[in-house]
Amino acid sequence: MNSQILKDGERIDQLFSTDVQIIQNRDVFSYSIDSVLLSRFPKLPSRGLIVDLCSGNGAVGLFASTQTQAKIVEVELQERLADMAERSIQLNQLSDQVSMVNDDLKNLLCHVPRSGVDLILCNPPYFKADETSKKNLNEHYLLARHEITTNLEEICQVSQHALKSNGRLALVHRPDRFLDILDTLRQYKLAPKRIQFVYPKANKEANMLLIEAIKDGSTDGLKILPPLIVHQDSGDYTDEIFEIYFGKNARKRP
Amino acid sequence: MNSQILKDGERIDQLFSTDVQIIQNRDVFSYSIDSVLLSRFPKLPSRGLIVDLCSGNGAVGLFASTQTQAKIVEVELQERLADMAERSIQLNQLSDQVSMVNDDLKNLLCHVPRSGVDLILCNPPYFKADETSKKNLNEHYLLARHEITTNLEEICQVSQHALKSNGRLALVHRPDRFLDILDTLRQYKLAPKRIQFVYPKANKEANMLLIEAIKDGSTDGLKILPPLIVHQDSGDYTDEIFEIYFGKNARKRP
Repeated sequence: MNSQILKDGERIDQLFSTDVQIIQNRDVFSYSIDSVLLSRFPKLPSRGLIVDLCSGNGAVGLFASTQTQAKIVEVELQERLADMAERSIQLNQLSDQVSMVNDDLKNLLCHVPRSGVDLILCNPPYFKADETSKKNLNEHYLLARHEITTNLEEICQVSQHALKSNGRLALVHRPDRFLDILDTLRQYKLAPKRIQFVYPKANKEANMLLIEAIKDGSTDGLKILPPLIVHQDSGDYTDEIFEIYFGKNARKRP
Repeated sequence: MNSQILKDGERIDQLFSTDVQIIQNRDVFSYSIDSVLLSRFPKLPSRGLIVDLCSGNGAVGLFASTQTQAKIVEVELQERLADMAERSIQLNQLSDQVSMVNDDLKNLLCHVPRSGVDLILCNPPYFKADETSKKNLNEHYLLARHEITTNLEEICQVSQHALKSNGRLALVHRPDRFLDILDTLRQYKLAPKRIQFVYPKANKEANMLLIEAIKDGSTDGLKILPPLIVHQDSGDYTDEIFEIYFGKNARKRP
């Protein structure tokens, strides 16, 4: 089966804590820790409708699918990535729950009802379009990492329209965009309620943040969740990250 | 000497990592971990002028004095607390470096030159005036903890006037006021550059934050510093906090 479902250069990776298998292609797009952390960050609604914006090869929505009965719509502009996601949905026999929309997220309301979404998950491009690090990237990574085909403002705007009142937007992003993120959320009446900073090691600056905002929520009651530290000093994963990757009952290597 | 310098109900506490002694009175005001952390949070200018606003019994400025040759002006509205600080300055023989101004911080520019301050440290009242937890406090704690005689806006406004261009304001505050703090800093053109969240334990939400902002600075380049965790699971201080309290070479109890 795998040889039929895979195209040239592709492989199947498994997130062991969920049993979900994801079709990856290192030359095109591979999910990484940000997607894994985003998928377990917000409390998922048990039913209803979840959207995964900028879904890439579908990892965030597929990981989330194992924790909820909600329908999940993945939205990805790049055809090649959307095609990988579509085949991962089939591979995991999740077509009843998860669907793939290969479109610009600007058109989200063509695919889901206005004010009808319970939760939007989004792992967006992190870098501004003018940042210079993009020169050596192929087109797929360029669009995934830089705000070329979408940006924070568009994501917050479409989220405000698509979310139910008190629906939630959960983002993973970089701390150097933190003030931008807060401003843009506010501009679209999305009130931040939970923030978690992710640190590569206990003595390093944060290199990632997770933030959850509520549509039309009040601006008080913000919580800064416990720090999430990825690696021990030795370089091994911390127990918390190991469990996120491999599950509660996995046995650590000695 | 101590019996002459102390008034009824007062005792002398020492921050062992600095050798500084502080006159305290549990019925009136005692410094706590926020003051200790604030004093070691910003890089202190080696010379120039530092102001400690809302100085209480003077702990923040006195701790900082051991790390710099800069002149330090402490500003405290409450006469009884200012008097304790004045006597702590004498007790530590720091009158040449540290001075006490018993006045409303609104009048700061009567005591320091406009655009003449390198660094302002401030451990302000944390709670809004209308929060209800204030009922059981005596007047001294009430004013120290609630925004009755001053507030964030006044602190940022006077800081903007008193700081040199590129001078810095360092605050300790509570995470539930975080969005307020960012807004008020921006209102007075103070750009946040370094933020550190303080967590009571590794698996608890942050209950304190340290933030440093630069007058007229650009809004990019924000850093989220490594998490500061106060207690181990056992309840003992973490190594980092132990060192802050007792110094690098102190021997831990077994």
